[in-house]
Amino acid sequence: MLLENERIDDLHRNGYKIIQSEDGFCFGADAVLLSGFARVKKGEKALDMCTGTGVIPILLEAKTEGSHFSAIEIQEKIADMARRSVALNSLEDKINIVTGDIKECMKYFKSEEFDVITCNPPYMKVNSGYINESSPKALSRHEILCNIDDVFEAAFKVLKYGGRMYIIHRSERLADIMCSARANGIEPKLLRLVIPYVGRASELILMELVKGGKPGLKLMNDLVIYKENGVYTKEVYDIYYN
Amino acid sequence: MLLENERIDDLHRNGYKIIQSEDGFCFGADAVLLSGFARVKKGEKALDMCTGTGVIPILLEAKTEGSHFSAIEIQEKIADMARRSVALNSLEDKINIVTGDIKECMKYFKSEEFDVITCNPPYMKVNSGYINESSPKALSRHEILCNIDDVFEAAFKVLKYGGRMYIIHRSERLADIMCSARANGIEPKLLRLVIPYVGRASELILMELVKGGKPGLKLMNDLVIYKENGVYTKEVYDIYYN
Repeated sequence: MLLENERIDDLHRNGYKIIQSEDGFCFGADAVLLSGFARVKKGEKALDMCTGTGVIPILLEAKTEGSHFSAIEIQEKIADMARRSVALNSLEDKINIVTGDIKECMKYFKSEEFDVITCNPPYMKVNSGYINESSPKALSRHEILCNIDDVFEAAFKVLKYGGRMYIIHRSERLADIMCSARANGIEPKLLRLVIPYVGRASELILMELVKGGKPGLKLMNDLVIYKENGVYTKEVYDIYYN
Repeated sequence: MLLENERIDDLHRNGYKIIQSEDGFCFGADAVLLSGFARVKKGEKALDMCTGTGVIPILLEAKTEGSHFSAIEIQEKIADMARRSVALNSLEDKINIVTGDIKECMKYFKSEEFDVITCNPPYMKVNSGYINESSPKALSRHEILCNIDDVFEAAFKVLKYGGRMYIIHRSERLADIMCSARANGIEPKLLRLVIPYVGRASELILMELVKGGKPGLKLMNDLVIYKENGVYTKEVYDIYYN
């Protein structure tokens, strides 16, 4: 089940576990926060784009009553790891991991197939600092193979009219996200800033968007990660453990 | 100096006073917050669009070292009130109130004349609820004569390349603002949510934008209006009184 440098970690949810790799990559707090923000209703079909380790569909399978979860990852080695995590939890009937490029999503999925799309995409612009463009970490963190426009163009194709999209991204990209989403027919509807402590600035944002939605954004209260001393707030503790 | 239903209020700043009207309108907390957010540097020329009572140029004249402040207001009766407030404070050399439509701003101002533009525009879409489209209050609150696109189109014409723009608006319009600004060559650079209390959702946003600026948004910490019991936080108290 495990390749070199891989380990199995507990997801604290339904007894589910996940395979992670030191040299490939591990899921971060952002994936967990997105799984706590996304709403998948009873019977709905969801797709996670840029799924990486597959942590988001596995957590959403545990947390929601969605009927089926697809996920797409461009790096075969990481998609294979996600597929083995799905098997480890005996979730093959509920979660399908596809190796592929979201820019070619119509090869793998039907038009308007999904009620919900989630995405924790690469955050960094390619021109931001030195990167090794062939490393798995660089591919997952930088917009080398997939940028914000690619995400919304693909989402528009496979998301139902009225379907919901949930993303987490760097706050500094907020204007890029809003402009690209709207240009692609997906309207920002709900925004939540993630802040490390009360009184500090946000570096991450959570957003709900609706395909074909009317303009008009609702702001939520901030999601505060820590109370004093690096201890999670109750809300974040519950996202992780309850 | 005063017409019927008008009164003189203290601005708690340089001894300045302002004329307000019960049946026309009074300035709100949003104008004061914008005057605390906008930066006008020594020697810079600023323009306030949709100036209303003229409270923003009068406060900015008091708070900054800007060399000159222009302001434009489409309703002659309110522009006249603003002009009388300027005279009341003997600021005719520093502040010029123009009666006019920002859509025709090139009639009144030169191309790229200003280092800074401020704007506290009408917040509400015309289709949002019953409005009397001829009342002064409706004209100042609803996008009857001026919408977000009009503001950024006009700003692009009269703002210097690299010049800064400061706006306050309803949070629900955030995507409209970001998309319209970028489409008009003015890039969102700094965003601050205004929240009534810690832990509550934002209904107002403050934004700094730069003509010709590169994409990349910085988030500030939230501006919190009240500590417990409707008492201003120190930061807001200082914006009003210090």
